[in-house]
Amino acid sequence: MGGDHAPAAAVEGAVLFARELVQHQVVLVGDEARVRPLLKGAPLPNLELRHASEVVGMEDAATSIRAKRDSSLRVCFELMKAGDVQAVVSAGHSGAVMAGALLVLGRLRGVERPAIAALLPALKGGGRCLLLDAGANVECRPSQLAQFAVMGEAYVRAMLGVGRPRVALLSNGEEPSKGTSLTREAYRLLSKSDLRFVGYVEGKDIFSGDVEVVVTDGFTGNVVLKTSEGTATAVAGLLRSAIEKAGVGEKLGALLLGPTLAGLKKVVDYAEYGGAPLLGVEGVGIVAHGRSSPKAIKNALRAALQTAEARGHPALRESMGRAAAWLPARSVTGKGATSGPNVD
Amino acid sequence: MGGDHAPAAAVEGAVLFARELVQHQVVLVGDEARVRPLLKGAPLPNLELRHASEVVGMEDAATSIRAKRDSSLRVCFELMKAGDVQAVVSAGHSGAVMAGALLVLGRLRGVERPAIAALLPALKGGGRCLLLDAGANVECRPSQLAQFAVMGEAYVRAMLGVGRPRVALLSNGEEPSKGTSLTREAYRLLSKSDLRFVGYVEGKDIFSGDVEVVVTDGFTGNVVLKTSEGTATAVAGLLRSAIEKAGVGEKLGALLLGPTLAGLKKVVDYAEYGGAPLLGVEGVGIVAHGRSSPKAIKNALRAALQTAEARGHPALRESMGRAAAWLPARSVTGKGATSGPNVD
Repeated sequence: MGGDHAPAAAVEGAVLFARELVQHQVVLVGDEARVRPLLKGAPLPNLELRHASEVVGMEDAATSIRAKRDSSLRVCFELMKAGDVQAVVSAGHSGAVMAGALLVLGRLRGVERPAIAALLPALKGGGRCLLLDAGANVECRPSQLAQFAVMGEAYVRAMLGVGRPRVALLSNGEEPSKGTSLTREAYRLLSKSDLRFVGYVEGKDIFSGDVEVVVTDGFTGNVVLKTSEGTATAVAGLLRSAIEKAGVGEKLGALLLGPTLAGLKKVVDYAEYGGAPLLGVEGVGIVAHGRSSPKAIKNALRAALQTAEARGHPALRESMGRAAAWLPARSVTGKGATSGPNVD
Repeated sequence: MGGDHAPAAAVEGAVLFARELVQHQVVLVGDEARVRPLLKGAPLPNLELRHASEVVGMEDAATSIRAKRDSSLRVCFELMKAGDVQAVVSAGHSGAVMAGALLVLGRLRGVERPAIAALLPALKGGGRCLLLDAGANVECRPSQLAQFAVMGEAYVRAMLGVGRPRVALLSNGEEPSKGTSLTREAYRLLSKSDLRFVGYVEGKDIFSGDVEVVVTDGFTGNVVLKTSEGTATAVAGLLRSAIEKAGVGEKLGALLLGPTLAGLKKVVDYAEYGGAPLLGVEGVGIVAHGRSSPKAIKNALRAALQTAEARGHPALRESMGRAAAWLPARSVTGKGATSGPNVD
């Protein structure tokens, strides 16, 4: 029931997924009166509808999921907790996704704050780079960045089949003397870790293919994602307007290049990447973009399936267990450890 | 004497500038034994050489400019203080540029910390957007962000002739509830200001043309610049490799589009924009990229000339004076007010 095009986009995306992956089951959770008509003549054997009477709206506080016990999001997590589903996808209120996951599923042992991760395209060899936190925690502590590193590394290992992913901290320069007090302390922690920690990288290195995991706080992570989106859009726009102003030869050129430009858009378009995993809770949650199209929802469902099948979650749990050897003991009195999600 | 291609790039850039703008005078400051031979048969009437026996190297501490009294950078600022030159351009150690400017020229009244600003291309109507701080101060206080806003607005007004530039704070969402404790306090300060403050913008909005000044701390600003550089490079690289793999028709298309693609590169390429002004010191300083080509140096000299001619500096001084009415009184005991530059 969440997202800019709800519930139509979610329903259409689920139908696309169910038609394509007939051996897997999709449960649509939401207001039956609104969802049923959208299914039209598509009663698929592997697509079921589970009624939920409430909705956490974009204008609601993230914590409203506590009171809204029959909200679609809350019911999703209850289904996962009961073992009826193996993963949850939502294009709704991302703060409420986090709050709901924490409330119903709980934190993974050793994790102070779950993070939202974003899988970005990298230039070399069709690679990928996982950026986290992509926006869940605007203010972080060094121990939290270190935990993000552990979770990100485990996720990339499980999901992308990279043996020893390279892990880096995002900073304003490569020298260890750069960064803020936050990044420098996280640097010190990660230097003692058993991860393949390569030190600081700069914003331009995220897409270079030289590292597989880039760790930052949720404020910077969000700014990075939006800046990269804005730059790609600006470059495409400049190209378009230059072509419009150009001569016949160049217009022909653009025509001939059409498929290549479309392919390029596909690589840059995050929708293709199917949502961002929520790492650090006891289960699999995928946060889809609020603007998700049916195709983006389908891809998010694929990512959820892939995470469940690749046993991404057990990998995270195992890694966090091993990391207890070098991670500072979790602060039980600290703000980050006890408060609710600081996203909304 | 600074930068990756020193002193050749600086000398060639100065020659290009002096040949093109014959009514203006350029002073090259550096080691005569190394610079003189590079001038070859180009003794231009408006290009003079001033010997300086020392250099602040990239490996030196920013503060080494205190001891290196005859370093090229130090001599530049001394020339400006004496009124012999109206602006200084350097592709060297940016921390040392800041330290030198502070040491020799001093702070503009009301400014706790100078900022480095970057003029970025915006999508709409060939516009520009000034981002500051672009990397000088990795950890900032709210009052400093408010001062950056005042300086950025004055600079854009003087330099780009925009009557009432729109000023925004960079954040992880547009709602006032978003951001960190730093941005929220800066938001409160700017809401009381006489600036045309439009609130928070996200990373994607920097290039949209909807605002003329975007304010952030130097850590985030640096990450934004590098991310946008990385994204533009990645998009160009993906386009290139897609064309290489494509058929004859698409290769022809790329050929026909050649001039457009080159024009695009020119817009995206920061070198074209001629360096970043250092705002908040008693004079005009332009920080050129360490990788500056001769052409980039020429453009930085142009920017320096334009700043001096547009009376950018008096505009800043006047705006800071007016802002004293709403800016919190400058903390004289605070760390930011008394310490040297925290860049290196």
